[in-house]
Amino acid sequence: MSHVVELRSDTFTLPTPRMLAAATAARLGDDVYGEDPTVAELESLSAKLLGKEAGCLMPSGTMANLAALLTHSPRGGKAVVGAESDIYVYEAGGASVFGGIVYEPITAAEDGTLPLDAVADAFEVDRDDPQFALPAVLTLETPHNRRGGIPLTPGYLAAAGALARRHGVALHLDGARIFNAALALGVPAADLAAPADTVQFCLSKGLSAPIGSMLVGDEASIATARRYRKMLGGGMRQAGMIAACGIVALTDMTDRLADDHAHARRLAEGLADVPGLRLDPEPPRTNMVFFAVDDEGTSHTTESLIEAARVRGVHLAELGRGRIRAVTHSGVTAADVDRAVDVLADAVAAAPRTTR
Amino acid sequence: MSHVVELRSDTFTLPTPRMLAAATAARLGDDVYGEDPTVAELESLSAKLLGKEAGCLMPSGTMANLAALLTHSPRGGKAVVGAESDIYVYEAGGASVFGGIVYEPITAAEDGTLPLDAVADAFEVDRDDPQFALPAVLTLETPHNRRGGIPLTPGYLAAAGALARRHGVALHLDGARIFNAALALGVPAADLAAPADTVQFCLSKGLSAPIGSMLVGDEASIATARRYRKMLGGGMRQAGMIAACGIVALTDMTDRLADDHAHARRLAEGLADVPGLRLDPEPPRTNMVFFAVDDEGTSHTTESLIEAARVRGVHLAELGRGRIRAVTHSGVTAADVDRAVDVLADAVAAAPRTTR
Amino acid sequence: MSHVVELRSDTFTLPTPRMLAAATAARLGDDVYGEDPTVAELESLSAKLLGKEAGCLMPSGTMANLAALLTHSPRGGKAVVGAESDIYVYEAGGASVFGGIVYEPITAAEDGTLPLDAVADAFEVDRDDPQFALPAVLTLETPHNRRGGIPLTPGYLAAAGALARRHGVALHLDGARIFNAALALGVPAADLAAPADTVQFCLSKGLSAPIGSMLVGDEASIATARRYRKMLGGGMRQAGMIAACGIVALTDMTDRLADDHAHARRLAEGLADVPGLRLDPEPPRTNMVFFAVDDEGTSHTTESLIEAARVRGVHLAELGRGRIRAVTHSGVTAADVDRAVDVLADAVAAAPRTTR
Amino acid sequence: MSHVVELRSDTFTLPTPRMLAAATAARLGDDVYGEDPTVAELESLSAKLLGKEAGCLMPSGTMANLAALLTHSPRGGKAVVGAESDIYVYEAGGASVFGGIVYEPITAAEDGTLPLDAVADAFEVDRDDPQFALPAVLTLETPHNRRGGIPLTPGYLAAAGALARRHGVALHLDGARIFNAALALGVPAADLAAPADTVQFCLSKGLSAPIGSMLVGDEASIATARRYRKMLGGGMRQAGMIAACGIVALTDMTDRLADDHAHARRLAEGLADVPGLRLDPEPPRTNMVFFAVDDEGTSHTTESLIEAARVRGVHLAELGRGRIRAVTHSGVTAADVDRAVDVLADAVAAAPRTTR
Repeated sequence: MSHVVELRSDTFTLPTPRMLAAATAARLGDDVYGEDPTVAELESLSAKLLGKEAGCLMPSGTMANLAALLTHSPRGGKAVVGAESDIYVYEAGGASVFGGIVYEPITAAEDGTLPLDAVADAFEVDRDDPQFALPAVLTLETPHNRRGGIPLTPGYLAAAGALARRHGVALHLDGARIFNAALALGVPAADLAAPADTVQFCLSKGLSAPIGSMLVGDEASIATARRYRKMLGGGMRQAGMIAACGIVALTDMTDRLADDHAHARRLAEGLADVPGLRLDPEPPRTNMVFFAVDDEGTSHTTESLIEAARVRGVHLAELGRGRIRAVTHSGVTAADVDRAVDVLADAVAAAPRTTR
Repeated sequence: MSHVVELRSDTFTLPTPRMLAAATAARLGDDVYGEDPTVAELESLSAKLLGKEAGCLMPSGTMANLAALLTHSPRGGKAVVGAESDIYVYEAGGASVFGGIVYEPITAAEDGTLPLDAVADAFEVDRDDPQFALPAVLTLETPHNRRGGIPLTPGYLAAAGALARRHGVALHLDGARIFNAALALGVPAADLAAPADTVQFCLSKGLSAPIGSMLVGDEASIATARRYRKMLGGGMRQAGMIAACGIVALTDMTDRLADDHAHARRLAEGLADVPGLRLDPEPPRTNMVFFAVDDEGTSHTTESLIEAARVRGVHLAELGRGRIRAVTHSGVTAADVDRAVDVLADAVAAAPRTTR
Repeated sequence: MSHVVELRSDTFTLPTPRMLAAATAARLGDDVYGEDPTVAELESLSAKLLGKEAGCLMPSGTMANLAALLTHSPRGGKAVVGAESDIYVYEAGGASVFGGIVYEPITAAEDGTLPLDAVADAFEVDRDDPQFALPAVLTLETPHNRRGGIPLTPGYLAAAGALARRHGVALHLDGARIFNAALALGVPAADLAAPADTVQFCLSKGLSAPIGSMLVGDEASIATARRYRKMLGGGMRQAGMIAACGIVALTDMTDRLADDHAHARRLAEGLADVPGLRLDPEPPRTNMVFFAVDDEGTSHTTESLIEAARVRGVHLAELGRGRIRAVTHSGVTAADVDRAVDVLADAVAAAPRTTR
Repeated sequence: MSHVVELRSDTFTLPTPRMLAAATAARLGDDVYGEDPTVAELESLSAKLLGKEAGCLMPSGTMANLAALLTHSPRGGKAVVGAESDIYVYEAGGASVFGGIVYEPITAAEDGTLPLDAVADAFEVDRDDPQFALPAVLTLETPHNRRGGIPLTPGYLAAAGALARRHGVALHLDGARIFNAALALGVPAADLAAPADTVQFCLSKGLSAPIGSMLVGDEASIATARRYRKMLGGGMRQAGMIAACGIVALTDMTDRLADDHAHARRLAEGLADVPGLRLDPEPPRTNMVFFAVDDEGTSHTTESLIEAARVRGVHLAELGRGRIRAVTHSGVTAADVDRAVDVLADAVAAAPRTTR
C-alpha cells in the first residue's frame, strides 16, 4: 500500500538525512552546565537570524512560550492574548497554572490581528486600584494558526509593539512558524521579530527538526527564561544532538517552505472544485488550508469525512467547530496534494447526497 | 452644609443602631477554634435562608468567591466566568494567581445571562487531550452588576445548573446582592440558590452590615472552603461581633430593599428628563441606575459630570467605558433621589451646550 | 458552676467594655475605598508605635504574614523561616500554596533565635545557578511561641537584620505578641521593630481586641501588601468598627500585659510543686507556661491530663510532642491561676501513680 | 594535550556509537500525538524493567520529579523530602513554585535514610485542622547523592512505603541512578521500585544517553504526569530519536556500571594515601567519591584545590560546605582514575604546607 499523506500538521515532519548526520557528528557537552558547543552555536545562530541578542533552546514551543510569559509577568500580572491563539487554547493554561498569571483573551479579527483599541482597553486599568490585575505582557501569534495561517504584517506588529511599550507591557511573539510568515511577506524574519521583546519559533514544524523550539530576545530576558527552563525541567544534557538538527533546519530548510506554500495553494485550488466542501474564501498565505463540510452538498459530517479520508490514506485534523485543517510540509509532495484532492472527492462521492 | 448623597455603591451603607446594639450584646468566642456561638448562629441562619446545608462567614465577598473557586477547581482546572462579571473584572484574578485556575471568560447577553451554547462550548473539551485545561466550575452573577443590575431568572439558573451537572462542573453563584434579585423576581432567595453548589452573598451591601459575606453550600464544599479561608487569612477571632450585625441584616434588612428598588426607579424616571444624559433603556430592576453623558447634549465628559455632581454633594461612580452608575441603598431617601436629579440637571445646565 | 479558666490561648480574650463603646461610636466609611477614618487612625497609630511609615489592618495575623511574604518575595523566591515558627507550622503553607515561594526552615536554638551562621548558609546560594531558589525574605518570630514565649533580644534582631540587608534579603518580623516581648525586655516595641522591613502584630491576642492584626512597614511595602490584601479577600467595608477596638487595644491594653506576665510566673511557680509535671526549666518571660506530663510521676498521658483539667474547668492545649501550653491573658486573674494549679494537682492526684 | 578527566558528574557522559546508530535508524512519529513507536518502546521497556505498569519519557529528571509531585499532591499538599535531597536542594523549589506544594524537609541519617519516626511525625497532622498542610507525598532518593551515593536498602524502602501507605501518602522514588543502587545491592531495580508509587530514573547519567529521564508507575499516575508534562512544556515531537539512545542505554549500559563502581573504589583507595585530603570514611558503594581539604595538611582551600586540579586536566566539583565530589562514569577509565590520583597528589604537593 502506498504511503500515508499526512496533512494533520507540519509537526509530523521527519528529520532529514543531513540532520541525522549532523546529530551523529555533533560536538557535545553537558548543556545544563552550559558546556554544549552545538547548543551554543544554535542559540547564537537563532538570535542572529531573528535580530536578537540571545537565544535559548527549549524542548517545545509550549515551554518557550510559558518561560517567556513567566519572564515578562510577575505573579498576579495579566497576559493579554488572542482568544483563539495557540498559547491560550492549546497550552493547558500553563501561565495561570504555574505562574499565577491572569489571561485576558481578546478576539482576533479575520486577519489574525488583535484590534489595537481592544488591546489598549486591556492595558488601561487604574494601576493604583488593587481590584485589577496589572497588564504585563501581550502575546501575538504569526502566522495565526486558527485564523487560516495568515501572517501579521510588519506594520501591525510595529504598531502593537509601540502600544505595548507605551504601557510598559512586554510583547512576546509566538512565531512558531515565523519563517513561513516571513516568506509569505517577503521580509526577513528579523523584521517581524523587531518589535517584540521575545520571540518563540519551532524547529520542529515546517523546518523539520525532530525536537525543539527557540526563545530569542534580549540578554536579560533570556537569562531569566533560562532559569525558568531549569525550574520547569527543560534543561537537557547532551542537547547538542538535537541542536545539530536545529542548525540544519535553520540553514537548509527555510527557503524550501516556498514549496509548502505552493502546495497549499494547489491543494486549495483542487479542493475548490470538490462539491460538498466549503473552503475558506481567502487563498492560503502560508502552509495551511481550511475547509468545512457543506452539509447542503453531502451527507458527511466533519467526523465521517475525516474518517473516510483516513481509511483512504489521507490524514486530516478537525480544529474545532467543524473546521478541517490540512497542513503542507516537507513530507508532502505535489503528487501527494493531488492524491489528497482525489481522495476527498472520492470520499464525498461515496456518501449519499443530501436531498433537501 | 447638607449631607452627601452617596450613590457610588451600596457598600457605603452604615450599620443600623440595632446592629450596633447586637454587636455590643453578642456572645463571643474564638471562631478560629469554631467556638463563637454568634458566628455559628449566622452561618446556620444563612444556610437555612438559602436552602443549603452549611455556611461560612468570610471577611469579604472576594474571599468567599475565591474560596469557592479554590474549592471547586483543582490546580489547572478551568473556571468559566462572565467576561464582565465582578469575579473576573474586579477581584484581581485571584483564582489564577493563588489557585492556578484558568479563567475562560464568556460575554454575557444584554439580560446578564451567559449564553448556554457558549457555556457548553467551553465545557466540551476533549478530556483526554492534555492540551486543554479541564472545566471545573461555572460562575454566574445575579443580579449582574455590569449588566444594569438585572436578575437572572430561576429558569435560566436551573438550565445552567443542569448543563453544568451534566458535564461534572460545579456551579458557583456570585449572589452578592441575591436578596435584591429575589425581591425583584418575587421568589425566595433559596429558589435562586437551588441550582448552585455554592452561593456567595454580601452582608455589607444593601443589607447594611459593616463587614462580611457568606458562602453557603453543601457540607463538604463548605468544609473545604473553610480550610481555604484559614489559608487565605480569613479566620477571625471574636467574629461574633460582626456576625451579630449580619444576623440583624438578614432579619431586618431584606424586606426594606423594596424601598431601594423604588428609589432606583424614581431616580431613573427623574434622570430621563435631564437633557444631556442617556439612560439605559430598560427601567432598573433592582437598585442600580446606569447612564452616560450624551455628548450631543452637553459639553460634559464623563469625568467632568461626575466631578460637577461631586462638588454639589452627589457621589457617582464611573464603571468603565463612559457608563455612570448610581446605586440606591439604606442611606438614600426619596428626598436624596430628588436632590440627585436636581443636582445632575443643574450640573448639565451649568456646562456650555455643545453645538454641532 | 464557676467560670472556665481559659488557658489554651490569649486569642480567647474578649473585647473590653471600652472597646464595645468605641465600636458603637466609631466614625465609619468604606475602607475598600480607603474612606474609613477610624481605620486610617488605627493604621497611623500602629505605624507610629512601631516606628514605621505605614500600616495596614488585616483580618488576621495569618493574612498579615502571608501578605508580607508575597510582598517581599517574587514567584520562586525563598523564605527562610524557623522550623517551629508559627508561620511555617500553623499557617497551612500559604506562601508556597498561593505565592510559589519556597520555605527553607531552620531549627531555632533554645533561646528562639535562628543561628545566624545557618541563616547565612541559607542566603549564600550561587545566584547565577538556576538550580537554586533565590533567598528573598527572612522571618523571625518574637516572642517565639514554640520556644516558650521567649523574646528575641534587640541585639539579635539587629544582627539578623544587618545580615539580611547585606544579602539583599528582606526581614519580616512575626511580632504577633510583640508588646509582650517589648514589656519583657523593657524596651519600646519600635526598638524591636527597627531592624525589620515589615512587622506583623495581633490586636486580638493579649491586647484583647476581637478581630484584626496589623502589618506595618515602609510605604512601598505596605502599598504592595494592601494590593495582596484585596486579592486575598481581606478588604473589609466599614472596618472602622473593629479598628475602633484596635485603637483601644493599643491605648489601654499594652501596659496591663505586665499582669499576664506576673500571672504566668505565678502559674509556673505553682506548677513546679505539682508532682507528675515537668516544667520548662526557665521561668516564663512573657505570658506562656510550658510543661509536660512526667510519666515517672503519674499514669496520666498528655491527653488524659488535659481532659482531666478540662472537666474540672481549666482549659489547656497540647502544642505537639507532649508539650502542654498555658497562656495567661486579660481573662485570667490571679485567683484563676491559683485555681488552675489546684485543679492540676487534683487531676494528677486522682490518677493512679505509676510504679516502676 | 591529553584529554580531560571529567569527574564533576556522570551527566557528562557522551552517547555511545551504538546510541548514535540507533538514533539515526529509529522509526519516528509525533510523540505529542502519541505516535512515536520508538518512544512507546522505551516507555514500555522502562516500565517493565522497573516492574511498573507504565512509563513516560521526560526531557529531564527535574521534570520527571516535578511531574510526579504534581501528580501525587493537590494544591496545598505537603511533600516530605530529604533536607539534602536533590529534589529539595537542586530543583529550584519547583513543586512550591509551580504546584503550590509545601516542602517539609527532614534531615537524612548518615546512611541516606530519612528516619521513619521523623517521617511519621511529618505525616501525623490533625487532618481536620486547617492550620496544617496535609501530607500528600514522600520522596526518597537512592542512591543518595549528598550522602555519599549510598543506596537505600530494600528493607528500608519497603518500610517507608508501608508507612506512607498507612497514612494515605504516595511514595515517589528519585532513582536518578537507581541502576547503580541495584548493582551495588545485587538486586533487580524492580525490587527497589516495588514499594514506590512512581520512580524517576535518568537515562543521561551513568547510562550515558544524551537526553532524557523516565517516570514509571501505575497507569493512572503516569496518565496524570503526562498531562503535566504537556503543561510544563515537556512534550517533544520526534522524540524517538532520543528514545532510541535510551533503549540502548537500558540494554547495553546497566551492567557496565560495575566498572564505574570499581573505579570509584580505586579512586578512593588512591586518594586515601594523598596527604592533605580527608576522605569520607566509608568506601564508595556506587560511583561517587567524596573528600575534603584537610586544612591541617595543606594550605589549599577547597576552591584552590579544585582549580589546581582543573589546570592539570582533572575536573572536580564542590558540593557545598567544602565537600568535593568525584564521579566515575563511562568516560572515565582506570588510567584516568590513576591520573586523577596523581594530579591531586601533585596539586597538594605544589601548595605550601601549613605549619601549625
